[in-house]
This record gives sequence, structure tokens and C-alpha cells, in this order.
Amino acid sequence: MSALTQAHGVYPIAPTPFLDDGAIDFASIDRLSEFYLRCGSTGVTVLGQLGEAPKLDATESLAVAKAFIRAFGSLPVIVGVTAPGFAAMRTLARESMALGAAGVMIAPPNTLRTDDQIAGYYAQAAQAIGADVPLVIQDYPLTFSVQMTPAVIRRIVADNASCVMLKHEDWPGLEKISALRGFERDGSMRHISILCGNGGLFLDFECERGADGAMTGYAFPDMLCDVVRLQREGQRDAAHDLFDAHLPLLRYEQQPGVGLGVRKHVLQRRGLIASSAQRAPRSHLSSTARTEVEYLLARLAKHDERAALPPL
Amino acid sequence: MSALTQAHGVYPIAPTPFLDDGAIDFASIDRLSEFYLRCGSTGVTVLGQLGEAPKLDATESLAVAKAFIRAFGSLPVIVGVTAPGFAAMRTLARESMALGAAGVMIAPPNTLRTDDQIAGYYAQAAQAIGADVPLVIQDYPLTFSVQMTPAVIRRIVADNASCVMLKHEDWPGLEKISALRGFERDGSMRHISILCGNGGLFLDFECERGADGAMTGYAFPDMLCDVVRLQREGQRDAAHDLFDAHLPLLRYEQQPGVGLGVRKHVLQRRGLIASSAQRAPRSHLSSTARTEVEYLLARLAKHDERAALPPL
Amino acid sequence: MSALTQAHGVYPIAPTPFLDDGAIDFASIDRLSEFYLRCGSTGVTVLGQLGEAPKLDATESLAVAKAFIRAFGSLPVIVGVTAPGFAAMRTLARESMALGAAGVMIAPPNTLRTDDQIAGYYAQAAQAIGADVPLVIQDYPLTFSVQMTPAVIRRIVADNASCVMLKHEDWPGLEKISALRGFERDGSMRHISILCGNGGLFLDFECERGADGAMTGYAFPDMLCDVVRLQREGQRDAAHDLFDAHLPLLRYEQQPGVGLGVRKHVLQRRGLIASSAQRAPRSHLSSTARTEVEYLLARLAKHDERAALPPL
Amino acid sequence: MSALTQAHGVYPIAPTPFLDDGAIDFASIDRLSEFYLRCGSTGVTVLGQLGEAPKLDATESLAVAKAFIRAFGSLPVIVGVTAPGFAAMRTLARESMALGAAGVMIAPPNTLRTDDQIAGYYAQAAQAIGADVPLVIQDYPLTFSVQMTPAVIRRIVADNASCVMLKHEDWPGLEKISALRGFERDGSMRHISILCGNGGLFLDFECERGADGAMTGYAFPDMLCDVVRLQREGQRDAAHDLFDAHLPLLRYEQQPGVGLGVRKHVLQRRGLIASSAQRAPRSHLSSTARTEVEYLLARLAKHDERAALPPL
Repeated sequence: MSALTQAHGVYPIAPTPFLDDGAIDFASIDRLSEFYLRCGSTGVTVLGQLGEAPKLDATESLAVAKAFIRAFGSLPVIVGVTAPGFAAMRTLARESMALGAAGVMIAPPNTLRTDDQIAGYYAQAAQAIGADVPLVIQDYPLTFSVQMTPAVIRRIVADNASCVMLKHEDWPGLEKISALRGFERDGSMRHISILCGNGGLFLDFECERGADGAMTGYAFPDMLCDVVRLQREGQRDAAHDLFDAHLPLLRYEQQPGVGLGVRKHVLQRRGLIASSAQRAPRSHLSSTARTEVEYLLARLAKHDERAALPPL
Repeated sequence: MSALTQAHGVYPIAPTPFLDDGAIDFASIDRLSEFYLRCGSTGVTVLGQLGEAPKLDATESLAVAKAFIRAFGSLPVIVGVTAPGFAAMRTLARESMALGAAGVMIAPPNTLRTDDQIAGYYAQAAQAIGADVPLVIQDYPLTFSVQMTPAVIRRIVADNASCVMLKHEDWPGLEKISALRGFERDGSMRHISILCGNGGLFLDFECERGADGAMTGYAFPDMLCDVVRLQREGQRDAAHDLFDAHLPLLRYEQQPGVGLGVRKHVLQRRGLIASSAQRAPRSHLSSTARTEVEYLLARLAKHDERAALPPL
Repeated sequence: MSALTQAHGVYPIAPTPFLDDGAIDFASIDRLSEFYLRCGSTGVTVLGQLGEAPKLDATESLAVAKAFIRAFGSLPVIVGVTAPGFAAMRTLARESMALGAAGVMIAPPNTLRTDDQIAGYYAQAAQAIGADVPLVIQDYPLTFSVQMTPAVIRRIVADNASCVMLKHEDWPGLEKISALRGFERDGSMRHISILCGNGGLFLDFECERGADGAMTGYAFPDMLCDVVRLQREGQRDAAHDLFDAHLPLLRYEQQPGVGLGVRKHVLQRRGLIASSAQRAPRSHLSSTARTEVEYLLARLAKHDERAALPPL
Repeated sequence: MSALTQAHGVYPIAPTPFLDDGAIDFASIDRLSEFYLRCGSTGVTVLGQLGEAPKLDATESLAVAKAFIRAFGSLPVIVGVTAPGFAAMRTLARESMALGAAGVMIAPPNTLRTDDQIAGYYAQAAQAIGADVPLVIQDYPLTFSVQMTPAVIRRIVADNASCVMLKHEDWPGLEKISALRGFERDGSMRHISILCGNGGLFLDFECERGADGAMTGYAFPDMLCDVVRLQREGQRDAAHDLFDAHLPLLRYEQQPGVGLGVRKHVLQRRGLIASSAQRAPRSHLSSTARTEVEYLLARLAKHDERAALPPL
């Protein structure tokens, strides 16, 4: 059994940094990775939806995975291998594992509807990539339009020994975490790790419901690490205080589409990536939006000095 | 032209209060209305999606509208008349207007896709209810799955003289407000009122982008009124301070489905409605969720004494 | 247990005839009903999707149901009561039953996704209308976007004693009929009637798979009656010959949207309704489409003299 | 300007033949190609949706395209390059063109809704693959859930000089063909080729409405060629006679999902591919369905001797 079933802490969803001309910026991958490690990340996930994975071709995807795997050393790297078909998914999954990835993440195609379709899809995917490849379910109905009940997730876990983790980003989703942990307590489901996405919008309570941490790409992963740590240490109020200070910006970043523009902009402002460039289709950050972000950063800086950035 | 084109301030989305046995609770309608008026609401919207409108039959719908219209006196009441067909929509619209409603709100059926379908639908709806009935567009893609560009909204406004207001709840939506106000400035669209929904999640910036206020049902409409007022008075930081203090709870309430349970629970905690009962299909508020809400209220009370409620 | 569990033959989906000014044409209801009875229909379904049910208000809906119930005498009339909420659904269901309806038909709201949501919805609907009201499931994913597996249908049947019939219009759907009849054979599901819709496009094989007949509104219900009868008599080739002769027109009529225009046009050409008028939103039948229909009728008339109509 | 703007006749949608073990069956590609050419196809389209394109990885996709291009010699081969992102789309498009493809076909992602989103997507795609690559729009709302009005198609054609053809498979779609040809007549749109898909279900009338022919994979492409030829020769009744004889089987094959199983089965029965194997996710053809296909073939053989096949 993969050690990922015991994963906890924060696995940032890494953006794919591009140079202004659209080329992959490998230097920023190194800088970003170093920062992730320094602030206490326990792993990383690359080639996710907000890692602009669909905008890379097969060769580029592997190169990005390789760069993060090298930078993270012995810490686990999860590679998003979601694809419209199993052949491309298998190719990327097996090549990533050969490079040292710890596991792969798969989101369902947005045409799935019934419980049987969803469970059947994951069974086929697990078989396609090979039973030796640790598998992370991505459950993100807001983006993928697929609704998985707790019972369906339990079924996927039971059907596939290689399933080790849930990237939880249902919305609302607090009761889903409680239900899954309840399944573990009543013995009807084996333990898997649950790391939460959804931009972190409910991370404060998700930890209290039984999640093991976060897997999301908010531009202050250091805050995510602190909140998860404080919750594990039982410092509930302190965790909420820190989280609440970030909530206005975090909410702003969680806007679909435009959110990636905010995220890359703030990461660039923090000096963690060289450019906020996206590949097409890209989200535009208007000048008004930039000033709103500056306002939010300035307000945040009163509570968290990490937000005190040099002026634009 | 209806005075609603100049509407501003806060029009709460009123819940429909039920007794524990599911009967409409008219006494709570009066109490709630009195509170709305006392805290500075400038109007109210009834029979919205979170007013559980689809759970009332034709007779009940009219009775609820009538009760709010009587309670609000000379202040405007907007009645949601969204319906699967134009005959029922027309009947409710005309009967509501006869009772003294100021206008009606219509959301599009979730099967509309193309720009022509959306514009065509509103033209047919406006004709069906009668050109003398002031019409509010509800633009809520997260719930209704219909995506209206600013240009389509401009087209609806141009096509239908009776269109007076936009209930704005696109997500993300800040740029949409800017685009629509830009249309007004460049003379390509006449002025309409824009009141914002979406649970209030971006009310802080929506006001700054040119919205006239809020139309949403957050359980502290008094906060909404204060934020809109502070923004109108130019007290930006104070507006954000108050808003940010509420954001953790507001975000919690904005969860689809479960949100209505939170909202009715808090309204009941505040003594504004007698029961938090919903009609089926109802959202369940778990005991854990209730304790989370209590925790959020207690934290909020440190910043806003209106959240200091007697213990459960 | 309602006799509807044993229903077979043809229940036409009755259009709602309108006069050119949009008023309900009760004289045509009588004429149409008389024709349905004369050609061997064993029941009728009113206020279905292609009966333009959403375009009637509550009073009109009941008047249409009443007119058909009176015309059909002792033969069963099923009333479509699909509604956005249970209050309106209950009101129409109970008033229809009081008038002599044999049962009601309910389609699911197009937002349902998971198996639990679908089963939960039908349980709530059955409870809302009352356990004494025979209930027909409408399973039409192409229009309603809800996908019910055979196991979910079995679950609805098990959960709700009042469920007596399936209006089957999944596409593809032949294996679903076989699966459901298999459930009956293996004892895991009690018997219900299965009548097939979907414009009749697969009626030839649906009968052979175990369906009890048709519930659809094709403009030649007399053909539907003959095909179902021939299949019951074991005259397979004759059934297919007749069906295949109609297939070019039947396929033409089955086009979403425009199909209702074709259907009402042909019914008017046959003298069965006075006008092909629809209420808004209406589908337009272009002059080219009309000549195509004439061409199809002329070709059909070589095989079935009922299609030999006086020139336009 | 690419010669494809003048394309007419039949471009079969080629299935990707697999051996029973899932390997690509290149021998069957040659045999199938030879048959397509012999029966009068004027081109071919590979790696379409029913060519199981998503089930191939990048290397395999190119190998399949190459095999067809070689077999078709000087006749045009269109390569489906639909992909979740532009990088992979560009790579396959440019490599295919380098091998001798005549153009590429692109279907929109199923998340597009507004007119602007659709037009914007095609502009970005055309730019991504390069302005020198002839582009075919695939308009298939039933499968891709994207609804393009005639005006949006006109806009795509105006925006992108490289757009040469429409694969038309809207449903209903006859009026769309008339509208587009009307745009050409009124001078508001330059001429493009229109070839029709949708399983051929309306090919009889599509030709009469102004389509240039068919682009679909029905297992009797020889019939498609004959119908298009007869229509061009003005033999309308003969065209319909032949088409109608095939309609029962053609309709059976057009069922979503299961249809590919029928198609490959019949192609194998005709000796055109060695195996009906599909890669996962595959559609299952039950033994009952196989006997239904045999029955349809036997009935068809009475009208078209090409359907007289040796017994199973």
C-alpha cells in the first residue's frame, strides 16, 4: 500500500510557470519548489486543472512533471493525468511514475452522470494505468459537473486497491468529509487520505471535520501550512484568526476563471514566479482587478506581514 | 418609466417562513418585514429561489406576496414570477401587480444556451406579462446554468422598455458590472438599477464597481445595509472592515443547498422567524453544522454586537 | 394496486389543441378523443411535455384534463403533473384524480444527477401527491437530462407502492427494457407496465423486448395501435412492414422542437384538430418543411392509405 | 484557399480498426480504405469521435492518420484534432499536415455556452494550429452540448480565412442548412462546403437543402454515395427509395453509444474490418441486439443486395 494513504499537511497545486512568450519557465519551477519546501509543504501536485495541464502537449507535460520531481527530492509529487481517453492517460501516468512520481490524480469526464458510470470509469482508469500506480480521485463538481456521493467514493475505494487519496473539492462538502470518516469508523471503508481543494474556501472547518490537509494553489501556501499545523496542534482559534485574515483575498482568488490570473499575479508579486503569463485560453486581469488585489494585500498585511509586498 | 430603474440600497431576498407543520407563517412575515424596514432596507424581493417559491402553489404564492406588500407599505416589493411557462408567469405577475407589487423578477429556464435564445426568451416573457409590468432580470448562472454576456443584457434592456433592473449574481461578476456601467457611459445602454445577489460574497467590491446595492438574503441584512451605506458615504475602509468581519459566516451561508438551512437557522436564532422549517425538498443542517455556525456567530460577535445572541 | 400496472396497447400523448388566438380548443379535444378511441387506443396521456403543459396555467390545466377524462369515459386518462415544486404538483394531481384520472405522470427536474437524488425525488413526489395516486415515471434523458439506470428504476418501484408504470423513452433504450423485464423474471422487481415514448422511433423492437405498448404522440396513432396489435398477435414481419413505411415521417416528426410543429400540422391535415397553433414559445414550420412533410405523406400513402390526404 | 471549400460527395467517418487484443489493425485500414475508394467516396475523415480518437495516444493517432493518408493517395483526408488544449491540438494538426492531410476537424469543448465563447474558441484554435491549416467546424450539439446558431457559424467563417467546411450534425438541422445557404446567397457569408453527419439520419433532405454530401460512418457508405449521387442527378424519388430501405438499420446504428458497436459489427460482417473490437470504454452489443441487426439486414437485403451477407 502506498504511503500516500497517510498523507497530510499541504500539497500545493503548482501552477505551471510560463515566460512571457509562452515557453515553460523551468527556473521558476525551481524557485517555486524551493519556496513550497521551505514553508512546510509535505508534497506537491502538478499538472492539475489550475496548473494549465490541458495547455501542454505530451512532451511538455512530462518535462514539467520531471522538473518538480527532481526539485522535491524525496517528498511526494502527484501528477495530474486526466485525459479524454485512457491511452494518453496511461502513457503519462507510467512515464511519470518511472520518473519518480508518488501517484497520479484523475478527474472524471464531465459527461458522467449515474453512480455506475462514475464507479465504472474509475475502475477502467485504474486498470488502464496499472494496478501499481497510486491513484487520487479528484472530486470537483463545480468544475467537472460530476456528482459523487460518499457511497460512490466508498465504492471506488473498495473496487480499486490502488486508490489512496481523495482530492476533496465538493461544494458544499463539509458533510461529505464527515460521512467518509464515518464510513472508516464503522468499518465500511478503509482509510484514505483526504486533502481539500476548492481554493481553500472551507479549509478552516475541513480540518475539523477530519480532512488531513489541503491540496490547493492559493498564492499563500505558507498560510495554508500554518492553518493546517495550528489545527493539528489544537490551536483552533489561532487557526481561524489566521484563516479569516486571508479570507477576503482567498475568496477573491477563488473566482472561476479570473482566479488563476489573481493567483499568478500574486505569486509574481511575491517573487515566486517570473511572469504571470498564461497560455491561451487565458483569463484577463483588468487594471481595476489589480488595484482590488493590491487593496486586499494591503489590508491583509496588517494581519500577516508576508502580505507586505514592495509596491508595484 | 418605473422608479425601479433608480433603485438602490438593499432589497433583502425574503425567505418564506413556515411553521413546523409546513403552513405559511404569516406572523413571521410581519415580524421579518418590520425588521427589514427598521434596519434600512429600501425594498424587498419575495418568492425568489431561496424564498422557496417553487414549493408554493398558485394560491399560496399570491398570499405571500400580498402579506409582504401590505407590510412594506409604500416601499417597493418585487415578486419572483419565474415559471416553466408563460401562462402561469403571467397570472402571478398580473395578480401581484394588482395587489401593489412594484415589479417582477424572472430567471431564465436552465435549457437556454445561445444569445438569441436568451434574448428571445425575455422578449416573450415581457410580452406575456404585459409591457406595463416592470421587469427584473435574474442573472445567476451558478444556479440556472444560463450564461448572459453583458452584450446580451444590453440587448434585453434595449428590446424591452419594461426592463428596469438586473439582479446580478454572475460569478465571477465584477467585470460584468464594469462592462454594463461602461455601456451606460458610452451611451449604448440606458440606465438600469443593478442590485447584487450571490449571497453577498462580493458585495464589498460590487458597490465600488458601480452596483446600486444588494439583493440577497444573508441573515444579517442590517450589515448589508450598513456596508452599502458606508460605501455610498465614501467610507471604504469602514465598509470593508464590517464586511470582512461577516465574511466567514457569509461564506458559510453561501453554500448551495445547505445555505438556506443556515440562513433560516440564524434568522430564527435572531428571533426574526418563528421556525427554521423548510418544505421538501429541504436541506438538512447537521448538529456539527449548527455548532460551526455558533462558533462563527461567537467570533463575529467580537466585531459586531448584533451577532451576540442568547445561547441556544 | 391500480389496474395501470397491467396497462398495454397505445396511450397517445395528446396535444393540447389551441385556436389560432391561443385559446384552448375544446371541440378539437372531443374530436381527437373520439378518433383515439375509434382507432383502438387503450388510454390517453394529457398534459405531457408535447401537450404543451407548461404553457397552461393551473386553471387551464385542470380544464384540459377534465375534458379528456369526460371524453374517454371508462378508459384510463393519465395526467402529467410535472412541476417545479411539490405544492403545485400535489394540487394538480389531487384535483385530477378527483375528476376521474387514472394516474399521474412525473418527470424529474433536470438538475438531478446521482442515483440517490433521483430515488429521493420520486419518494418525495409520491409522498407529496399521496400514496393513493398511481404514479407513472417518465424516463426521458434526451429532454430532461436525467439518467436513470435500471437499478434506480427498480429502487423507485420498490420504494413507492403507488408506482405503476414507466414511460420509457431512454435513448438508446432497448437494453433497458430487457434489463427491467429481467428484474421481474428474477424476482427482484414487481411487475409494472412499460409504455414507450421517444416519438415511437424504436417501437418495432421495443414491443419485442417486452414493452407493453406505446405512449407517444405520433400523428398516426392508428399505425401505433396496429403495430402493437400485430406484435401481440405474433405477426412480426407485418408489424415491421407497417412500421417501416411510417419510419421516414416518424423520424421527421421526432426532431426536437420542430417535431411538435410537424405533429400538429399533420393532425390538422388529417382533420383531427382545427388549428396547428401553438402557444409561445412555439416551433416554426417553414414552408420548405411543409413541402417536405407533404412529400413524405405522399410517399407514405403508397403503403398506407390513411396518409392519402386531400391536397393542401 | 483550400480546395476543401468545394468538397462534395461522401467523406466516410472512418472507424479505427483494432485487433481483438486492442492493437491497431493496419491491414484493416488498408482494406477499408480500398473499399471506401471503390464505392465512390471523395475523401475520408479519420480520428473522429466514432473513430475512437480519444482512445489513442499521440503516437498512435499520428500512425492512424498516416496509414489513411497513404491509402487515399491524392484524395483528401481530414484529421480530427479535437483536444482539451491547444498545445496537443497544434502538435497533431501540424504533424498530420506534414504527412499530407488536407485539413483538420475541430469540435468545441462541451463547456462553451455564449456566442462569444464559441467564436472566441475557434479563433484561438485557428491561430494555435496556424492560419495555413484548413479547418473544419464540427457542429454536433447532441454529443458536445454546444449550440451554434447560423450567425455564429457565419462569424467563425468570417473571422478565420482557414475555415473551409462545416461538418453539420445539429439536430434538428435542416433549417440551419437553409439559413447558411441563404447567407451565401445574400452575400453575407463566403461559400464553404457542408457535409452532414448525425449518422445520416436526415441525409435524404439535407442534400435537398443545399448540403454537399455526407460525412458519417454508417456501415453502408456505398449507400451514402449512391444517395448523394442520385440527388445530384436529380433522381429524387430513387434517392429516397434507396435511403428509406436503409432507414430502419441506419436508425438502429445511430443510437448513441451502442451505435458504434452496431457499426463495427456490420463492417466486420461485410468483411471490411477483421474485428469489431473497441478499446475501453466500449459499448456492448448484446446477443439480442445482434439478432435484431441480423433481422434488419435480412429485411434490407430484399431491397439492396449489398446487405445479403453470408450467415453468421
